[in-house]
Amino acid sequence: MKEVPVILFGVGGVGSALLRQIVNGRSPLATRNQIQFNIVAITDSKTMLWDKAGLSDEQLLAAVDAKTQGLPVDPARQARPSEAKIVQKVAEANLDSAIFVDVTAADGLEPVLMQVLNRGYSVVLANKKPLAGAWETAVPFYNHPRLRHESTVGGGQPVIATLRYLLDVNDPIYQIEGQLSGTLGFICTQLDAGMPLSQAIAEAKAKGFTEPDPREDLGGKDVMRKVMILGRMAGWPLEASDIEVESLYTPDLANLSVPDFLGAASQLDAAMKERVDEACVNGQVLRYVAELSEGRGTVGLKPIPAGSPLANMKYISFRTGFYNDEPLLIGGKGAGVEMTAAGVLGDMIGLVREQ
Amino acid sequence: MKEVPVILFGVGGVGSALLRQIVNGRSPLATRNQIQFNIVAITDSKTMLWDKAGLSDEQLLAAVDAKTQGLPVDPARQARPSEAKIVQKVAEANLDSAIFVDVTAADGLEPVLMQVLNRGYSVVLANKKPLAGAWETAVPFYNHPRLRHESTVGGGQPVIATLRYLLDVNDPIYQIEGQLSGTLGFICTQLDAGMPLSQAIAEAKAKGFTEPDPREDLGGKDVMRKVMILGRMAGWPLEASDIEVESLYTPDLANLSVPDFLGAASQLDAAMKERVDEACVNGQVLRYVAELSEGRGTVGLKPIPAGSPLANMKYISFRTGFYNDEPLLIGGKGAGVEMTAAGVLGDMIGLVREQ
Repeated sequence: MKEVPVILFGVGGVGSALLRQIVNGRSPLATRNQIQFNIVAITDSKTMLWDKAGLSDEQLLAAVDAKTQGLPVDPARQARPSEAKIVQKVAEANLDSAIFVDVTAADGLEPVLMQVLNRGYSVVLANKKPLAGAWETAVPFYNHPRLRHESTVGGGQPVIATLRYLLDVNDPIYQIEGQLSGTLGFICTQLDAGMPLSQAIAEAKAKGFTEPDPREDLGGKDVMRKVMILGRMAGWPLEASDIEVESLYTPDLANLSVPDFLGAASQLDAAMKERVDEACVNGQVLRYVAELSEGRGTVGLKPIPAGSPLANMKYISFRTGFYNDEPLLIGGKGAGVEMTAAGVLGDMIGLVREQ
Repeated sequence: MKEVPVILFGVGGVGSALLRQIVNGRSPLATRNQIQFNIVAITDSKTMLWDKAGLSDEQLLAAVDAKTQGLPVDPARQARPSEAKIVQKVAEANLDSAIFVDVTAADGLEPVLMQVLNRGYSVVLANKKPLAGAWETAVPFYNHPRLRHESTVGGGQPVIATLRYLLDVNDPIYQIEGQLSGTLGFICTQLDAGMPLSQAIAEAKAKGFTEPDPREDLGGKDVMRKVMILGRMAGWPLEASDIEVESLYTPDLANLSVPDFLGAASQLDAAMKERVDEACVNGQVLRYVAELSEGRGTVGLKPIPAGSPLANMKYISFRTGFYNDEPLLIGGKGAGVEMTAAGVLGDMIGLVREQ
């Protein structure tokens, strides 16, 4: 049985789900994988819990339950040390083979993550930011033997693992394509049914499918980040400017408050209806598709045949040397904190197995 | 750079493709994976080539080129030693961490494979037989840390890896489903278009999509073996009798010669046409689908909605605790010796990484 120290950055939805999966699954996880994860530190944006010997399951579950109020503050160390100091603490405690897990959406963690890797520790990212910034700062994180990031794309589905396998066996990647946003998939399906765009947006928001500001989804940036991560893994030194992103809202709506945006969104309806109708006449539906090949890509609405298997599926596909006439496809919903957390857990297990 | 001795049982289509991928990919495979595969023995059913230090790339490519005539016979050791003797030779040569690769379709290799594992070597199977026999003889090969078998199901697509990941993270498997036969998928599509079954069979055979005896495909045994392997991985101690298999030909045609079978197959047409027509009236098409849950399964024709994404796709899907309302799906063609060989190569790389 290997005991593995774990440091968790971020105790939001994914972090909490991960802690619950580890605590509630201790016995089957240990039996199957011969691994015992010792959570030595968990941090949110305000504070941290730390125990060199491993926080108790009770402490972890209490932290999960309390997460809406922030972690319970330990009076002895109310001020949260910076992530860099946490790395230092781990080093001083001689916690060999520790795994640092970043499930935040934080900017600027790159230097800390580099420090972690340089000290010989491992990293698991659900946070896309360190991989999706400028090529120069991101490149050390690609194909690093002690860094994994399954949950950055496909929300826990084995998309990254599949691409890694194709690259391992020397299969050239020709094209990467997919519908990568469940939110935009939902909105597109509503458009098929004749609903105006503004109403589809409101409905998606009401159902909790969007970010608090739906423009985060509608702008396509998150889809762009995902496809950039896949493309960079495939060996293309992509910058954001290499990917053309279509926003589903016009620039004049960018600076409104959220309620004002929702009110003004109806001015997008007529133009969108025209596009939906034109596709419909040709037996097509509009889908928000990401396409990438030879180091250039587009992310945006594309008419595809209404009867195509891909019209009604969230998916990612790889066209490669081996999978050329028909691409290799990973599909299904693949969203939600439980699946994303499972992807992180799978990465943690994989890292231990390969040490 | 790790040097890894490899012993290859079987130099047919998959074995030859594997040797070509290794020999032609030496430099990129070594650069990316830091592994050098030394092929120390290759065998077909008649003879073997052996070199403790590793066969040269020229010898390997010559063997691949000569494979239709059998391996070139080395006069010094014309008689092919049994697989058990090869294991002995490997042990005497102190070839630590050797990988034995079985890409035959041979029966009865189980004792040799057990010997290999017991001596601390690793095994990669594309051969389904050792995993699909009686539970008692097959069970030691399941979830063994030094045995992999990606290419037994899905022809090199990461189906086994995906199921392994779900099991690793303690996700309960509720249902496994799929269209697992490209040959039967082709035949079903011809039926949709109104072609009689006998003609669809003849056409599939003419295109080289079937085994030499098409009843191997039509009987459903191969699909049954695949779904049994997935089910056993999922933890169900399945025997062949737990899976109901529908054969697409009647028992009276079982003992005819192949030409006689093809001649007599037209007697199947009327009954099949009736089923196809009945499905069509309901907006459905017939597909040869494998379904497995709670340790029992069926393999056979099933009407599914013509517009379903799954009507026109070879796929395997997993319904699990996390992927419950919409299953996790791996799709695409996934057949052919190159992809199957790539699955074997991926397993070899994975085993080295985890040692």
